[in-house]
Amino acid sequence: MNIVVAQSGGPTSVINASLLGVFRQALAEREVDIVYGSLNGIEGIIYDRLVSLNDNLVTDEDMALLRQTPSSALRSCRYKLPSADKDPAVYESIRRTLENHDIGAFFYIGGNDSMDTVHKLSAYFAEVGCPIRVMGVPKTIDNDLMEMDHTPGYGSAAKFVATTMTEIIRDCTVYDLDSVLIVEIMGRDTGWLTASAALPRLLGETAPHLVYLPEVEFSVEGFLADVMRVQQTTRTVIVAVSEGVEIDAAGEFQSGKVDNFGHKYLSGVGKCLENIVSTRLGCKVRSVELNILQRCAAHVASATDVAEAEAVGMAAVRAAMAGETGKVAAIQRVSTDPYRVDYTCIPVEQVANRVKYVPREWISAAGNDVTDDALAYIRPLVQGEPTVLTENGLPRHFVIE
Amino acid sequence: MNIVVAQSGGPTSVINASLLGVFRQALAEREVDIVYGSLNGIEGIIYDRLVSLNDNLVTDEDMALLRQTPSSALRSCRYKLPSADKDPAVYESIRRTLENHDIGAFFYIGGNDSMDTVHKLSAYFAEVGCPIRVMGVPKTIDNDLMEMDHTPGYGSAAKFVATTMTEIIRDCTVYDLDSVLIVEIMGRDTGWLTASAALPRLLGETAPHLVYLPEVEFSVEGFLADVMRVQQTTRTVIVAVSEGVEIDAAGEFQSGKVDNFGHKYLSGVGKCLENIVSTRLGCKVRSVELNILQRCAAHVASATDVAEAEAVGMAAVRAAMAGETGKVAAIQRVSTDPYRVDYTCIPVEQVANRVKYVPREWISAAGNDVTDDALAYIRPLVQGEPTVLTENGLPRHFVIE
Repeated sequence: MNIVVAQSGGPTSVINASLLGVFRQALAEREVDIVYGSLNGIEGIIYDRLVSLNDNLVTDEDMALLRQTPSSALRSCRYKLPSADKDPAVYESIRRTLENHDIGAFFYIGGNDSMDTVHKLSAYFAEVGCPIRVMGVPKTIDNDLMEMDHTPGYGSAAKFVATTMTEIIRDCTVYDLDSVLIVEIMGRDTGWLTASAALPRLLGETAPHLVYLPEVEFSVEGFLADVMRVQQTTRTVIVAVSEGVEIDAAGEFQSGKVDNFGHKYLSGVGKCLENIVSTRLGCKVRSVELNILQRCAAHVASATDVAEAEAVGMAAVRAAMAGETGKVAAIQRVSTDPYRVDYTCIPVEQVANRVKYVPREWISAAGNDVTDDALAYIRPLVQGEPTVLTENGLPRHFVIE
Repeated sequence: MNIVVAQSGGPTSVINASLLGVFRQALAEREVDIVYGSLNGIEGIIYDRLVSLNDNLVTDEDMALLRQTPSSALRSCRYKLPSADKDPAVYESIRRTLENHDIGAFFYIGGNDSMDTVHKLSAYFAEVGCPIRVMGVPKTIDNDLMEMDHTPGYGSAAKFVATTMTEIIRDCTVYDLDSVLIVEIMGRDTGWLTASAALPRLLGETAPHLVYLPEVEFSVEGFLADVMRVQQTTRTVIVAVSEGVEIDAAGEFQSGKVDNFGHKYLSGVGKCLENIVSTRLGCKVRSVELNILQRCAAHVASATDVAEAEAVGMAAVRAAMAGETGKVAAIQRVSTDPYRVDYTCIPVEQVANRVKYVPREWISAAGNDVTDDALAYIRPLVQGEPTVLTENGLPRHFVIE
C-alpha cells in the first residue's frame, strides 16, 4: 500500500520534523511502498495534488534540512471540512484520490481544526466501510490540545519566547530611569506560551515581573496597581501579556481607534497597554509584539521538541500499521525529573474541538504571574540546542517546489 | 596607571565583547593596574560610580559569559556632553574622578554621540594640559560611522534580520492566496540593516521581493506599483522596509492618527504600509516590526562580529598605551574574498557627528532593492555561529550588580 501525509494550520518550527517522522517510519514498514505528500493540506487530496516524498527526500542531507526547516514544507490550508451530510461530494473526492493512488492510510499533521477533519473523515470511512485509516499528528505552538502532556511545536516556541525575554531583560535595563516594557505573546485562548516568558526566573532573573494569561480576567486598574507596586523596587518593570487578554474597559481603550481610511485600528493588547501606561503613569513605556517569529524561529528550536515531533510522526505510522484509525498520536509525560515521555494514541473525538487551558493553580492567586509548578512543567520542553546546518551564515531550508 | 571603560547609547549583541577586549588587553599591558568600569556611561565618571572589573571578571567562564551577553553590562546613558565653554564644571568633575582613581586612559564604547564625547573630552584635556588619553571604541547596529569598513554590532544585527527573514519567508508562503508581508527594520537614517534583509538571496530565495532604504525617496504610488508588479509572478509579496523611510503623503498616511487620549498614534512605517496595501489593494496583508530584538538577539550573534568587537577593544587599548588620544579604533577591510580585516585608529573628529549612508550604487536604479555588491559587502560580516553557554535551555548572561 501507499500512504499520504499532509500539513495544516499555522506554522511551527517542528511540523516538518513530524513530516520526516512519518516518512522515515513508513520507509521502515514493509507494507508501505510510496509516501505521498498532499500539497496545501486536505485540499491537495480533494484536488489530487500529491507529490512523491520518496522522490523528494533522497539523501541524509535532505532529511536533515527538512528537520530544521520551519513551517510546512507541503504548505498549508485553513479548509474546514463540512459534515458528510451537507457535502458528501467532498468526501467522495477525497476517497477517489486516495483509492486512485492505492493509499491505505492518511496522516494529518495539524492543530484543532485538523483533528476535526481526522474525526469526520475517519467516521465517514467507518460508516461507508472504506478501510483507509486516518490518523492525526498534533502540532501547535499554543499547546492547547486535550489528552496529551504537550504538543509538538510548543517547546520551540517557548524556547524562542524565553530566550528573547532574557535578551529583552538585558536590553531594557541599562538606563537609569523609570520605564515599563510590555511583551505581547501569541495565544488567543490559552496562556501556555505566555507562561514560558517567565522561564528566565530559572536563571535567577526577577523579570518578567508581571505575567498575564487569558485564563484570568484582566483589569486595567489592577494592572496599573501591579505596575506601580513593582516600580517601588525596580526601575524597569517588564510585563509579559498574552494577545488573548481582554481589556475590560474595551470601549474606552481598544475600539474607536480609526485611521485616516476609516479602518478600525487593530492595535494589539501590547500597544493598548502601552498607551494606558503612558497616559496614566506618564513614564517611558514600550511594547514589543513577538509576532510570527514565535512560530517559525527554528534557528532557536528546542532539540527536545524536534526529537519528540519526529517521534510522534513515527508513532502515528506504527499505530496505523497496527490497524488503528481515528486516533491522534500523543506525547505523555512519564516523569519530569528525569524527564521521560511515552507515545500513545488517543481517540480523536477526545481531542478535536476541545481546548486545554492553563490550570488555575498554575497561575498566582492575584492572577498576575505563573507559579513554580508551571515553570517546572515547561522547563524540560525547551532543553537542548540542535545543530543547525548553515550556508553564508544563515540556516538552510528544504523546499519542495 | 589604571584605566576606565564605559558603554553608551543603544544596545548591540557585542558591546560587551568590546568591553572584554578592553579588559583582556589591559591585563596584558604591564603599565595597567586596575581596569575600572564606569556605570551608566560618562555619568559614572561625572558622579564617581566606578567598579573594579578585575574584581568582577575573575574566571574564564566570567569572560565567556560576558562575551555572549547582549546590551551593556556597565549599563548605558544618553548623556550629551555640553561644550567646555558652557559647562566647565562637568569637565572638572570628570577630570577629578579620573585623577582620584589614578586613571591614565578612558575608553568609551559607543556610537555617534559617544564619539562626540570622546572628541570634546580629548580636546579639553589637550587644551588644559591633562595627560589622560581618551579613546573611542565604535559600536552600533546602524553601521553608520564614517571612516571604517563597518561597525561592531552590525554583523550580529544583520545576521538576526537575515535569519529571521529566511524563517518569515517559510512562514508566510504556505497558503494558496495572494498576500503581502511587510517587515519593518531598524535604521532611522541609513539602510544598512534593512539591506541585510536581502541576504537570503544568497541561499537562492527570491524574497524579499522589495527592499526600501531611507537613502532613496519613497513614493506610495511607486510602492503600490511595485507590489502589483511582483504579484503577477508570486502569490506572497515580501517587503523589507526601513523604519526611516518617509512616506511622501505624510499628511495623509502618517500624521493625524490620534488615540482616545489625544496622543498622536506612533505607528511605524510597516503598519502604515500595511494600512495602505489593505485599503488600496484589498489583499491579505500583515506587518512585522522586528523591534528591539534586532539589537539584542545575541543567541544568533555573528561569530565574526563577536571576534571583531573584542579585537577592536583590544586595538583601542594598544593604541592608548602607545600614546594615542582622541582617536577611534576601527575595522578596515583588507579583502572580501577571502575576508580579511585590519585594525586602525582614526582621529575622532573624522567620525563624530557624521553619518555614513548606503552608497546609491548599492541600491537598484528603481530604488526598490539592493544590488549584489551590497550583499557581497555584508556577507562576510554574518559568518559563523558562536557556541552559546546555556542553562535550562536558555542563554546564560553575565550581570554586574
